[in-house]
Amino acid sequence: MTNHPVTYQLEKKDKRTGARLGKITTPHGTFETPMFMPVGTLATVKTIAPEELEEMGAGIILSNTYHLWLRPGEDLIEEAGGLHKFMNWSKGILTDSGGFQVFSLSDMRKIEEEGVHFKSHLDGSKLFLSPEKAINIQNKLGPDIMMSFDECPPFDESFDYVKKSVERTSRWAERGLEAHQKPDSQGLFGIVQGAGFEELRKQSAKDLTSMNFAGYSIGGLSVGEPKEDMYRVLDFTTPLLPEDKPRYLMGVGTPDALIEGVMRGVDMFDCVLPTRIARNGTTMTSKGRVVIKNATYARDFRPLDEKCDCYTCRNYTRAYLRHLLKSDETFGLRLTSYHNLYFLLDLMKKVRQAIREDNLLEFKEAFFEEYGYNKPNAKNF
Amino acid sequence: MTNHPVTYQLEKKDKRTGARLGKITTPHGTFETPMFMPVGTLATVKTIAPEELEEMGAGIILSNTYHLWLRPGEDLIEEAGGLHKFMNWSKGILTDSGGFQVFSLSDMRKIEEEGVHFKSHLDGSKLFLSPEKAINIQNKLGPDIMMSFDECPPFDESFDYVKKSVERTSRWAERGLEAHQKPDSQGLFGIVQGAGFEELRKQSAKDLTSMNFAGYSIGGLSVGEPKEDMYRVLDFTTPLLPEDKPRYLMGVGTPDALIEGVMRGVDMFDCVLPTRIARNGTTMTSKGRVVIKNATYARDFRPLDEKCDCYTCRNYTRAYLRHLLKSDETFGLRLTSYHNLYFLLDLMKKVRQAIREDNLLEFKEAFFEEYGYNKPNAKNF
Ligand SMILES: [Zn+2]
Ligand SMILES: [Zn+2]
Repeated sequence: MTNHPVTYQLEKKDKRTGARLGKITTPHGTFETPMFMPVGTLATVKTIAPEELEEMGAGIILSNTYHLWLRPGEDLIEEAGGLHKFMNWSKGILTDSGGFQVFSLSDMRKIEEEGVHFKSHLDGSKLFLSPEKAINIQNKLGPDIMMSFDECPPFDESFDYVKKSVERTSRWAERGLEAHQKPDSQGLFGIVQGAGFEELRKQSAKDLTSMNFAGYSIGGLSVGEPKEDMYRVLDFTTPLLPEDKPRYLMGVGTPDALIEGVMRGVDMFDCVLPTRIARNGTTMTSKGRVVIKNATYARDFRPLDEKCDCYTCRNYTRAYLRHLLKSDETFGLRLTSYHNLYFLLDLMKKVRQAIREDNLLEFKEAFFEEYGYNKPNAKNF
Repeated sequence: MTNHPVTYQLEKKDKRTGARLGKITTPHGTFETPMFMPVGTLATVKTIAPEELEEMGAGIILSNTYHLWLRPGEDLIEEAGGLHKFMNWSKGILTDSGGFQVFSLSDMRKIEEEGVHFKSHLDGSKLFLSPEKAINIQNKLGPDIMMSFDECPPFDESFDYVKKSVERTSRWAERGLEAHQKPDSQGLFGIVQGAGFEELRKQSAKDLTSMNFAGYSIGGLSVGEPKEDMYRVLDFTTPLLPEDKPRYLMGVGTPDALIEGVMRGVDMFDCVLPTRIARNGTTMTSKGRVVIKNATYARDFRPLDEKCDCYTCRNYTRAYLRHLLKSDETFGLRLTSYHNLYFLLDLMKKVRQAIREDNLLEFKEAFFEEYGYNKPNAKNF
């Protein structure tokens, strides 16, 4: 059995939930978990410098295999010395498998045993991605954590379809492990699929945990299904995963789902939400959502979030942020993106502290109350 | 005679040119001259944080009265505690008078003795700007240095028109001085006009220097006329200005014109050029213009400028910059903007050192040769 280059150390479990406090060690440093990973799709977290990510406490970021494969190409990044050097980021990097983008960005696709034929979302050119190709690209990109190539079926697909899909994803996972050329310096995660079907999640988890992965991702969630469904699936899925390896819930980034995910034993999360909504001037604050472009903030000279001590909140007012956003000034997007990322990273820091003190349930209740999640018709973020 | 809140101290003159080494003291600190001022039109230097401007050596920035008057409005900025506090910038700020924008952005305008009627470039609404109004707005914005309201006629206007215009600009300057409510905390500059006519520049300089201004701007240049014309006008205009006050050449920011301006006795410059071209991926380097989007840089893993030690050049490659620009990633605009601003600020630092050592002519020759200005058909920037 290989010594994986990415390891998980469980430090403590919350007494009343499944929440885990731990540490993940990668070839580019150790970070505490639960952790939220900012998304840097094209080898940049939009508007934000690597030094700023470090300053706000990010120990690992995510980048997208599919997008980097198309632009600038994995060979160029390999030539540059790998993703870390290319983008000037010295801490952890995780890349996805490209599978999700193949199924979400492309409308012309044909799934075969060998892999998937589809068209580029940029220019419509014909592309083909297989388990081996996805691993090969990621070996060249050089992240600390790579993902197996998987099929991510819609949540409401039929049992029969999802069963076939899960079986194929398991075969693909095996092929990916075989194709992995750098098992000593890059950890490969398997992705548990199975939509909302307990039986299929069990089958998927059983297949994948029988193989030698460095960690496990939970895929096929946060794809439009009601949150109750996501939590239900997590309830029966995380217990199927080994205690001594990291667990990563893909695509989750709303404050409530982060906390709910942690309570169900998840260690890592990623989502484009904080930076995407920031670019429309929507921010997450301790008192809930603030849409900073609204006229009500025109002469509001308070910080965006009075309880936040991020760069944005320490130095700028809501009135200034609103002015920048209304004037389409990119510095405004920098400031709102900074705050939103800080907010989620800081939330996870508080969550870790709550696990340490065995009061995650109380923390959740107080946070939900202040954020506004307990109100009728509460927004997701 | 008032003690101006903005003062100039001449430290040394270059032995063989008119270049002046000096210091300008403002209510927000002292900076060395000659100095280039980054432009922050809407109370932000596009894509760049105030801390970064300080880090690259900017002692003063420029903001635009006309634009701030329209968005977010001078009353709001006054309420915020003034421009410095609003945008979190603790060093010098200079605002223009709005005159240039009235004449360059608006195509429907009517000039009267009282002021100018024109239409907003944003929504076409009717606006009126007078010398008193321009000063009133600037008093509320609170910059260290304000400009008199002037008419900026096209360089090729007739002698008769420009003569009338210069006379009116002098009357407007007098009215502006009268209207100035904060002479103890904000220095007001007069703007010498007169297009390419020596007689009219003399008249304008004589009128304005007889009034009590804290400094003098040279306007109506860098408006599309050949560079030889600009240098010819500077040759006979700067000697008309008092030695003990700052001289500011408006709208100049190409490396050659900065050096030529310094040689003719100018202390301050501003231009949107470095940030504007940066957003198209065009950069100024010690070896001349580099259009970073070009395919030739796709696998060029050298820094943008091997002689530059700015944040961008210390940490990123041409290949990465090209990737970001090609992918419309705003972090790319941050990095090219940072470098271009640093390049001009650093150029002025070297110019100051050359004056100190009495070798500005040699510096200019070496710089022009390396930058490519001595080549036939050399580009301006
Ligand atoms: Zn904040
Ligand atoms: Zn540089």
